[in-house]
Amino acid sequence: MAFKVGLLGLGTVGSGTADILLHPAQRHPLLQEIEIYRVGVRSLDKPRAVNLPPHLLTTDLESIVTDPNIDLVVEVMGGLEPARSLMLKAIAHGKHVVTANKAAIARFGDEIFTAANEAGVYVLLEAAVAGGIPVIEPLKQSLCANRIESVTGIVNGTTNYILSRMQAEGSSFDAVLEDAQALGYAEADPTADVDGLDAADKIAILASLAFGGRIKLAEVHCEGIRQVSATDIAYAEKLGFVIKLLATAKRDMVLGSGNYSQDSAKLAQLQVRVHPTLVPKAHPLANVNGVFNAILIEGDPVGQVMFYGPGAGSGPTASAVVSDILNIAAILKVGRGAVVQDGKPLLDPLLACSHQDYCSIAPISDLVTRFYARVLTHDNPGVIGRLGTCFGNHNVSLESVVQIGLEGDRAEIVVITHHVREGNFREALEEIRSFDSVTVPSVLRVI
Amino acid sequence: MAFKVGLLGLGTVGSGTADILLHPAQRHPLLQEIEIYRVGVRSLDKPRAVNLPPHLLTTDLESIVTDPNIDLVVEVMGGLEPARSLMLKAIAHGKHVVTANKAAIARFGDEIFTAANEAGVYVLLEAAVAGGIPVIEPLKQSLCANRIESVTGIVNGTTNYILSRMQAEGSSFDAVLEDAQALGYAEADPTADVDGLDAADKIAILASLAFGGRIKLAEVHCEGIRQVSATDIAYAEKLGFVIKLLATAKRDMVLGSGNYSQDSAKLAQLQVRVHPTLVPKAHPLANVNGVFNAILIEGDPVGQVMFYGPGAGSGPTASAVVSDILNIAAILKVGRGAVVQDGKPLLDPLLACSHQDYCSIAPISDLVTRFYARVLTHDNPGVIGRLGTCFGNHNVSLESVVQIGLEGDRAEIVVITHHVREGNFREALEEIRSFDSVTVPSVLRVI
Repeated sequence: MAFKVGLLGLGTVGSGTADILLHPAQRHPLLQEIEIYRVGVRSLDKPRAVNLPPHLLTTDLESIVTDPNIDLVVEVMGGLEPARSLMLKAIAHGKHVVTANKAAIARFGDEIFTAANEAGVYVLLEAAVAGGIPVIEPLKQSLCANRIESVTGIVNGTTNYILSRMQAEGSSFDAVLEDAQALGYAEADPTADVDGLDAADKIAILASLAFGGRIKLAEVHCEGIRQVSATDIAYAEKLGFVIKLLATAKRDMVLGSGNYSQDSAKLAQLQVRVHPTLVPKAHPLANVNGVFNAILIEGDPVGQVMFYGPGAGSGPTASAVVSDILNIAAILKVGRGAVVQDGKPLLDPLLACSHQDYCSIAPISDLVTRFYARVLTHDNPGVIGRLGTCFGNHNVSLESVVQIGLEGDRAEIVVITHHVREGNFREALEEIRSFDSVTVPSVLRVI
Repeated sequence: MAFKVGLLGLGTVGSGTADILLHPAQRHPLLQEIEIYRVGVRSLDKPRAVNLPPHLLTTDLESIVTDPNIDLVVEVMGGLEPARSLMLKAIAHGKHVVTANKAAIARFGDEIFTAANEAGVYVLLEAAVAGGIPVIEPLKQSLCANRIESVTGIVNGTTNYILSRMQAEGSSFDAVLEDAQALGYAEADPTADVDGLDAADKIAILASLAFGGRIKLAEVHCEGIRQVSATDIAYAEKLGFVIKLLATAKRDMVLGSGNYSQDSAKLAQLQVRVHPTLVPKAHPLANVNGVFNAILIEGDPVGQVMFYGPGAGSGPTASAVVSDILNIAAILKVGRGAVVQDGKPLLDPLLACSHQDYCSIAPISDLVTRFYARVLTHDNPGVIGRLGTCFGNHNVSLESVVQIGLEGDRAEIVVITHHVREGNFREALEEIRSFDSVTVPSVLRVI
């Protein structure tokens, strides 16, 4: 047994991780060289899904991250603290870290990676984004020759499950949420999922990797799916779209140039945002349904590649955690890190996090995108002209204006714009909302 | 300039590779440490898509693979010879190799990897399968904790383009092939693509990686798409399927157990095969159209993950080639390989090819699968009963038998079976083909 692992947490992901490590048959032979040396838990008496010798378990998590025998600490306890402090202490004690903790990495990534570089250790986090789907390592290694242009993902299984069921059944958000909670697909407090916060953590991590700069989480524009109605899903369907909660990070598009900015600045201006989005049915992300996740990466010269699979769950997440453990073991085994510079081992430039500057993130008002808006009015004959004029006055060019149905005695009009600046669109919208007998119950972006 | 690359070939992929190396801006900083040191070409006078200093070009390819200044040889010339000999000579001279050559690797992989292990060098081949889509490295690294159960892919863009157009337009194979040739999507001699040989090379490589054993290419069962008719595509569509050329490698399923064999033998018995297949429309591979490729990997505990993107072309393939170059440069930079064992540098156990045994591949007659068969008959009232009895006598259980149309004065009957042993199905089919007034123009497998 060559490599000793200290496991922090034995919940869903921790049990899945231990289960793989205990059953190496028909897996990579390197697994036989990994030993579970200590497992930190909150309670020693709780019944466990995996069968571990009781002497491995301890409630003293500090003793694990400081144990000189341990090579590698696996943080699968979740939450911000004590996860952050324990990871930092493990790093300070020269241990490599594998974590599934998107919330901690999205918030404290700077601190954690700075400490890791200082100590000459790796912090790997494949499991933090999209569970079992390989995306972090492919971004770092398999796509490293590319200039990444965008990363667009369905990275939250709960909201994708809810939207998929609303689409399939014509049900309301509230009804499906309640059912999803009963079935265990949504938490009792669903805020982090349905308000897009979990997706924001994940796109912040992906953006940082894709664009080689740090991301301030507070600058990620974030809208959830509470306001998505069955009516909008039905209209989107008629127009050839499905509605998905997309997390997007993209080099900023310059309006009118018809092309991406080829800014020579070291760090490009980025858009980083999470919001419900109309996706054309032929788009690769449109067919990603239920709890599945997918991430579409666009790069020069690779074009569009997509990674699809289970975004959560014990087995898939543990697959990513253990693969990270094996990647570190492989590095240690063959002496990478043997080259010492300034007193610390040199880290692999593809696997370590070397960037220190912050990406500049454009305000959402500068976003250039298409919009879908649903307008209700008592005064149909006149209002289409007034809408058109008002949008035109604000430089918002329209692709289509269609009276698509009736709600009670009011006409429903659906407007789809061309690519326009969000700020201009919002100004027009404010004016339209002041019109007599006009309301605008829904506004969504269109990919 | 730290790492010197010798490029063998300056065609489509070679030019794309040089183009990335000459334009490192906004890509990974490690690219700035890669130098194109020599380029081997057939003719010095040919106009080139990239602008390289003429003194780098040579027609003496041997001088590149033996040049002591070169760290890494990139083989993007294609074909079997002299590619094989040059790679072997480069390895013998202690150079790492990056190749896009699926044909050479599928045939001479044994020889090449044995030599590479002997010399302590890496041979990376991300570009050999599915162009720009990361799949080789994810299989080696990101999914390495899994017991792989199956790899199923659309890995040939030409055939997928032809089948997608036949599906969309209702056209015949011959008509679409001719047009694809005119448009440059199919070669003048389309054999390697349409007969499934290119897909067989690729699935042999993927199977070897997924199941940790070598694969004899001659044992890969291979059927192409020439016999797929517009009629079958239309019927499949009515039944909820699309027809795709799938390349599959799978641990053998034991009929009746309802589960995968958990054989404790070191190497599992595998099915490795390429054939047109009916794919349910809701299956992740069903929506992969045109020249796109996708590979679906099923593992324990990850479940199903899919990789999707452009399977060919200069940019996508060069993306994979240059990423492999950078991965080797990263390894060299930080001293991996510094640990020497038996006089040669120890190779990373995840990235190197360590297996030496051959996988046992089951004969196609032992395959357990569902079938689609289209039967033509003059004697409809009697024939359904006779079909059912004959299949039953051979232990072939039927899911549905439907008279679906008329061709001239003959009734067309479409049969879908449950999972049955291929050998039994073929015996039943032989008997049915001997019936008076019955012909069986199409037989396809169903995923």
